[in-house]
Amino acid sequence: MTKGLATRESTLNPSALAELLAAVGKENVLTTVEDRVCYSYDATSTRQRALPDVVVKATSTEEVSAVVKVADKYNIPVYPCGARSGLSGGAIPVYGGIVLDTTRMNRIIEINAQDLIAVVEPGVITRRFQDEVAKYGLFYPPDPGSAEFSTLGGNVAECSGGMAGLKYGVTRDYVLSLEVVLPDGSIINTGRRSLRTVAGYDITRLFVGSEGTLGVFTKLTLHLIPQPEKVEAVLAYFHDPEEAVDAADGIIVGKGIIPRTLEFVDGICIDSVRGYGSVDIPEKARAFLLVEVDGDKDVVERGILGVESACREGGAFQIVIARTFEEREALWAVRRVVSPALFKVAGRKLNEDICVPRSKIKEVVRELYSLGKKYSIHTACFGHIGDGSVHVNFLYGYDEKEEAFVDKMLWHIFRKVVSVGGTITGEHGIGTAKAEYLPLEIPPRELQLMKSLKKLIDPKGIINPGKIFLP
Amino acid sequence: MTKGLATRESTLNPSALAELLAAVGKENVLTTVEDRVCYSYDATSTRQRALPDVVVKATSTEEVSAVVKVADKYNIPVYPCGARSGLSGGAIPVYGGIVLDTTRMNRIIEINAQDLIAVVEPGVITRRFQDEVAKYGLFYPPDPGSAEFSTLGGNVAECSGGMAGLKYGVTRDYVLSLEVVLPDGSIINTGRRSLRTVAGYDITRLFVGSEGTLGVFTKLTLHLIPQPEKVEAVLAYFHDPEEAVDAADGIIVGKGIIPRTLEFVDGICIDSVRGYGSVDIPEKARAFLLVEVDGDKDVVERGILGVESACREGGAFQIVIARTFEEREALWAVRRVVSPALFKVAGRKLNEDICVPRSKIKEVVRELYSLGKKYSIHTACFGHIGDGSVHVNFLYGYDEKEEAFVDKMLWHIFRKVVSVGGTITGEHGIGTAKAEYLPLEIPPRELQLMKSLKKLIDPKGIINPGKIFLP
Repeated sequence: MTKGLATRESTLNPSALAELLAAVGKENVLTTVEDRVCYSYDATSTRQRALPDVVVKATSTEEVSAVVKVADKYNIPVYPCGARSGLSGGAIPVYGGIVLDTTRMNRIIEINAQDLIAVVEPGVITRRFQDEVAKYGLFYPPDPGSAEFSTLGGNVAECSGGMAGLKYGVTRDYVLSLEVVLPDGSIINTGRRSLRTVAGYDITRLFVGSEGTLGVFTKLTLHLIPQPEKVEAVLAYFHDPEEAVDAADGIIVGKGIIPRTLEFVDGICIDSVRGYGSVDIPEKARAFLLVEVDGDKDVVERGILGVESACREGGAFQIVIARTFEEREALWAVRRVVSPALFKVAGRKLNEDICVPRSKIKEVVRELYSLGKKYSIHTACFGHIGDGSVHVNFLYGYDEKEEAFVDKMLWHIFRKVVSVGGTITGEHGIGTAKAEYLPLEIPPRELQLMKSLKKLIDPKGIINPGKIFLP
Repeated sequence: MTKGLATRESTLNPSALAELLAAVGKENVLTTVEDRVCYSYDATSTRQRALPDVVVKATSTEEVSAVVKVADKYNIPVYPCGARSGLSGGAIPVYGGIVLDTTRMNRIIEINAQDLIAVVEPGVITRRFQDEVAKYGLFYPPDPGSAEFSTLGGNVAECSGGMAGLKYGVTRDYVLSLEVVLPDGSIINTGRRSLRTVAGYDITRLFVGSEGTLGVFTKLTLHLIPQPEKVEAVLAYFHDPEEAVDAADGIIVGKGIIPRTLEFVDGICIDSVRGYGSVDIPEKARAFLLVEVDGDKDVVERGILGVESACREGGAFQIVIARTFEEREALWAVRRVVSPALFKVAGRKLNEDICVPRSKIKEVVRELYSLGKKYSIHTACFGHIGDGSVHVNFLYGYDEKEEAFVDKMLWHIFRKVVSVGGTITGEHGIGTAKAEYLPLEIPPRELQLMKSLKKLIDPKGIINPGKIFLP
């Protein structure tokens, strides 16, 4: 898979290179091994690497189009990328060729409070955008864990979800219009500036979540909503993960509250983060829920009371309520450190973003723990339990036997998830990391339809090839 | 276009007819002219008609598949339909052939409060579904004006919007998974039962809003949300339509309130409904806003105060507040009668569902009124102004000169709408009614992409042919 990393010489056709240099200027074309190595990986935990032949930094739609036209002319793979913070290998140039870096296209072109929209370039960092729109009293809800460094273009490519998905939906729900450079270099515009349109097929949403395999986004028109007045949080500790899952039901079904966030963290995660930050986690906690409620002052007050009471009814033995931004941040600091802290348990971690109907969460989590026992592999769960998104983690060492066990467990869990109507990927995408598992979830006829869509839009297979579908 | 209506004999191939009879039983195959005439039209105001050769009523996925296979084998057009309440000609069998009536597939298979989902057949009436889920404390927000008789399958085909679009989104946002019979008769399942999935391309949303041109829906998995605790309404009268538009901005931008509904009705509409129902409309009212706020008791209280104050600041001279269901219904009775009441003004009415960025509403409405004056054609506006959806109405008689004027005005308004970033159809679809205008909005390359998607999925062009694209 690593296709001659190290110091592999670029095999780029010299005429193609000359045309790329002409297209974007030599300061935007990187050809040294050092530069190319920097673009050989993304944040995917498999640590897969592949060296591109050249890296091109585009600064405009026209440049992107020119680069893609060169790729089309010479039949060279082109791998669009943003911050390369994706977790499924979406940005890895598996067949070499051109990496097309769009991070310099980072202008926020317009924020329009009256129309509740913003127009941005794909390289804008998610958090920067959220902060900018907040200055206008506006809110952009999609909030992937990587928001501090991910780009909006990458978010659209992967249809990123995040913490606020249950209440506010995911990236798909906030994209009104896309400017896209198609694989032949032509530039199209999907959707409209208006909040609604049903004119023709929904091309916009065909591109959202297409993992960069159908074209390169060069401009995004996004929908915004008013910033809620207030946010408060509850952290509730439980003796047992299943109590916490039940309490989540109590909040949503029992009390009819849709919280802004509803995060679940299990015991092994808690053990890993104990001691980090300023929060004293009780010894006997084997799970916690971190729940945020937002809206008007009064809604929040009532919502927090409702969440607290649902948690107590569900068996919570200790509850912390955070009223201020600083208090909330202290709780989030604990939640955010969960994923990296799990490396304390073992040298390697596989984090899978399954999503199931909420009524099936207990069944799936139970299965995961029992597999862990059977194979003596540490397993841990956390995630956006409100919408059924559970990140299941396999923690293991650099050991072939353990690796084989994890592989078995993974197939087992994915089959289970699919059997209960869930998905093997709720938010990270298929990329290279899950291509071999995709047929578990997508039957042959549906898979064929997806492949034929790819073939239709990218007949030469030059845009982000080697992703989603097995060769 | 009417293709030999009246008593045109069926020209259906006898072998095909025999196979249809075998597929669904003779009680489900209608061949008399009387029966076929009943399926020759839908609710579109152009009153276009076309007689099918046969009407087939399916009661299961297998039957739908069998019927489509016959159509495929004999190359016969097949026109799926629900309640035929669409407003763009989506259900009209323009090339004859088979009408495939799915209204008998009207089972609500499952309502699952824990998972916040329902599984239904396509023939379920929208309002019946809303009422059923309400019994579980749940809410299905898409609420087209035709909800009393439209089917959910039809809603998905057209991606219906309706009153609650600004706050709650449209049909697209509530479809998790579809069972679809493809044009070759094969059955596929898109999406998952879980609230999230990003596995592969978003096939689900390619089908939502495809106007029945890519396949026949046989099962829908829909997302539900908790029923809000309370709804209250404000009716605010203004001396001038532009004051009302500004007040809408005051509510959304000024107060940061996203109301459940935000309906605008102009003076000519008001004059048409005066005297209907129990609401005394003040003489000098030239516009009103009907605004609903929903949520917790306290949110609603504060929201109503905010709406009231934004309306007063915007120039409202009289305000009615409806606290109870009955009081609200009295206000809605007025709003609902607007569209039919406009026939008092003239014998014919063309109602176009444009949608524009909210900052452009005044400009477009002004243009409409000035065109009306120029051509001496009555024009009227009402609609879901919160998301920029304005129904523009042309009221005219059975007169060739007026018809020609309306045609001119329509082209003018559509061009205007497109020039400000809006759409010629925010919720009714293109169908036959707007196919000639679609190229105004969708450029050639994008249109070609859409046509190639149709060709890919329906290579023989047998599913709902003659829609969206000009031949």
